[in-house]
Amino acid sequence: MSHRHIQLTEQGKLKHFLSIEGLSRTLLTEILDTAESYAGMSNKQVRKVPLLRGKTIINLFFENSTRTRTTFELAAARLSADVITMNIATSSTAKGESLLDTIRNLEAMHVDMFIVRHALSGASYFIAQHVAPHIGVINAGDGQHAHPTQAMLDMFTIRQYKKQFNGLKVAIVGDILHSRVARSQIQALNTLGVAEVRVIAPKTLLPNQVRTLGVIDYHDMVEGLTDVDVIIMLRLQKERMNSAFLPSESEYFRCFGLTEAKLKYAKSDAMVMHPGPINRGVEIASAVADGPNSVILQQVSNGVAVRMAIMSMILPPGSNS
Amino acid sequence: MSHRHIQLTEQGKLKHFLSIEGLSRTLLTEILDTAESYAGMSNKQVRKVPLLRGKTIINLFFENSTRTRTTFELAAARLSADVITMNIATSSTAKGESLLDTIRNLEAMHVDMFIVRHALSGASYFIAQHVAPHIGVINAGDGQHAHPTQAMLDMFTIRQYKKQFNGLKVAIVGDILHSRVARSQIQALNTLGVAEVRVIAPKTLLPNQVRTLGVIDYHDMVEGLTDVDVIIMLRLQKERMNSAFLPSESEYFRCFGLTEAKLKYAKSDAMVMHPGPINRGVEIASAVADGPNSVILQQVSNGVAVRMAIMSMILPPGSNS
Amino acid sequence: MSHRHIQLTEQGKLKHFLSIEGLSRTLLTEILDTAESYAGMSNKQVRKVPLLRGKTIINLFFENSTRTRTTFELAAARLSADVITMNIATSSTAKGESLLDTIRNLEAMHVDMFIVRHALSGASYFIAQHVAPHIGVINAGDGQHAHPTQAMLDMFTIRQYKKQFNGLKVAIVGDILHSRVARSQIQALNTLGVAEVRVIAPKTLLPNQVRTLGVIDYHDMVEGLTDVDVIIMLRLQKERMNSAFLPSESEYFRCFGLTEAKLKYAKSDAMVMHPGPINRGVEIASAVADGPNSVILQQVSNGVAVRMAIMSMILPPGSNS
Repeated sequence: MSHRHIQLTEQGKLKHFLSIEGLSRTLLTEILDTAESYAGMSNKQVRKVPLLRGKTIINLFFENSTRTRTTFELAAARLSADVITMNIATSSTAKGESLLDTIRNLEAMHVDMFIVRHALSGASYFIAQHVAPHIGVINAGDGQHAHPTQAMLDMFTIRQYKKQFNGLKVAIVGDILHSRVARSQIQALNTLGVAEVRVIAPKTLLPNQVRTLGVIDYHDMVEGLTDVDVIIMLRLQKERMNSAFLPSESEYFRCFGLTEAKLKYAKSDAMVMHPGPINRGVEIASAVADGPNSVILQQVSNGVAVRMAIMSMILPPGSNS
Repeated sequence: MSHRHIQLTEQGKLKHFLSIEGLSRTLLTEILDTAESYAGMSNKQVRKVPLLRGKTIINLFFENSTRTRTTFELAAARLSADVITMNIATSSTAKGESLLDTIRNLEAMHVDMFIVRHALSGASYFIAQHVAPHIGVINAGDGQHAHPTQAMLDMFTIRQYKKQFNGLKVAIVGDILHSRVARSQIQALNTLGVAEVRVIAPKTLLPNQVRTLGVIDYHDMVEGLTDVDVIIMLRLQKERMNSAFLPSESEYFRCFGLTEAKLKYAKSDAMVMHPGPINRGVEIASAVADGPNSVILQQVSNGVAVRMAIMSMILPPGSNS
Repeated sequence: MSHRHIQLTEQGKLKHFLSIEGLSRTLLTEILDTAESYAGMSNKQVRKVPLLRGKTIINLFFENSTRTRTTFELAAARLSADVITMNIATSSTAKGESLLDTIRNLEAMHVDMFIVRHALSGASYFIAQHVAPHIGVINAGDGQHAHPTQAMLDMFTIRQYKKQFNGLKVAIVGDILHSRVARSQIQALNTLGVAEVRVIAPKTLLPNQVRTLGVIDYHDMVEGLTDVDVIIMLRLQKERMNSAFLPSESEYFRCFGLTEAKLKYAKSDAMVMHPGPINRGVEIASAVADGPNSVILQQVSNGVAVRMAIMSMILPPGSNS
């Protein structure tokens, strides 16, 4: 509820975008509808609108992510905003400046929005709590907590192919325990009203009492994939390998990797999704990643449109910032 | 005088901005007046003017500085110039190219301005001496020599609160010996005609014959702060600590850190300034940095406007560059 | 021939620019003519045309090169395109993503052009083969294979001074064996119909059967330079020094460095060229590099115009990308 409180204005408009938690089905649908208009723009000659001209957006990346950073830069450029990307590892925090002092200084430069990527859960929430009232904050991934723009581009892609969420069975496969992407996807899927959210993983990669998240847990791919409409594969962090959590890569692939054989258990028109970058032969076979059911690259395309939508909803052109 | 010569055109207009030295009170006032119009712009919906559209500004940062670099990037973007930031440590100087060859190559690409940050005193002066006649050079900090845009934003902030320089007593506290900021501030304050410039520091952090700079030196905070209108705290470079120059951090703070208790000796409406980033509990107590007398964040805000002013005075839109 | 096939549309228009090989004299001349109009623009007040507004250009630099990257950034900015520079060493390839997956992801973001710099010969050709049909690829240097935009700016500079290629004798001096620049220059010079291309180098720095490239080889500067109209010096890679290929720097300079004394053997109005950055006192004496015959900085200037020409020919404003 605290998230709802901080993310919305008193009129119920989007102010920050930190987490799917606490956002209504209506608001998520408004994001998807707004993104639709931007998705059409990608095929036009000139992919630029002057909506955010004169606005300044700061990419605050405390954790490296070329792909996410690039989609935000593209989204901002196509809205005609000025973007400055700050790689904070090499910045004044190195001089011992605290996070809050960095934020205070940037807001004093009259910026309009922070896009925050941070290895600590809650970092963007902390920034949103302390930022000046006219500045919007978008969470571009914080620790193991949330990655809500990724979840929304996934929802956009599902709606694009399945038209509605009603009645869909969705399986999320992989390291649920450590995944901010999975956490945000589960919240979005449940808010948008799918029939069933399944998680498939070895027990070591599932949170305790995972069913309280609104999912059904499976520990076997065949069982879990049976009859689903959507399969979302998670990236396996290589650094988890050879740890207590996991056996070898090949053993993991044998049990939880998505192959053409396992895909057959899902519905024939099941969508295969992945937030990328993919580990071919670890969590997904190349034949599936590049196969007819895969919409992985479509997700990337939609990422720009969905981020444009969220940015423009937070910073409407008539805003008083 | 050599600085005056190189910084001004024959008509007395600003050509480069390398040092406060040699610039007249009239010119410094013109910078402050021009900045005033840009400062107002920050509160507008669209913070962009097409003044420098089609101009190319190169950020030549031989020394890392996120904050200064960002304010220059923002200032350039708000004037609609194209900015390319070059981190020269990782560039062709690594291939053994000399500074002059780097400059020659960049000017051959028809650029209009260099913003130069360099660890060596005199680097921007050297570049201004050798650059093609139509290119302007701004010193964004060179060694221990000068940081004139910082000094001007400080002057802007002082004028904003105190309305005039006449009659003001200003104390600069900290490592005067190694500070390019202090050197530029002292020159600006004296040129603009304040009543008194004091420096407060341990003797090891004061230059020899410091009074020839036009200041009165104090070695005790209570004495030095008594009755001043403005207190400028300098950042203590951590690398000076544990050296011959200084005892421990806590000892430094005890003697020269600005606390609420010591602040009481200044006038009740004394401004507390700091070029940032601040070391809380080293040169300044948090209660003072965040307290009612502090204008530290206002300085940052003004930094963008003052840099826009200087850029636009060097590259007027009707210029023949 | 394969290069011709992939670089041109069915209508014979430029689609990618990967290599001089296989391109006709007519097409190279069209590039030079187009560049001419942009070269004039550099002296104007506003050096910006809205030709590529709304287009997205990705600088894919797998190998560092400040100078080349900067000229491409400037060229794109002056055509009003949005440019995103990706330093791929620090990107998701570090997460184990393959080159092809990186490309697929970027093209999914609806980008229009890749500028590719890579240490492996054939990298940009590989990307062009696999890229979506609407995306153009420009080779900004691949291994020891080709650097065709450098060659075209050299041709532009030669035509600027000599008016035509007919009858010119051109000598290329230095490490021919490892030079992608030399390879592209030789192809361009022969296609444009110069009278004679000479290469001058120690035998260890010449490919086997070098004459099959359409050049005459010399191992002595006096002989090789006699009567030439154009001298192109190559940069000596310091890492070749003290290897099997080369004796000491001073020994190399004595034999193959261009000095005023050796320059006298060329025609009195011979042009001295160098792709930069130069090693003063290694392959060229400062007196020559900075002397009246040198056009080295003019080459840099022309680099922006030539790259604007190639970009705008690949992405014409009326294109359906």
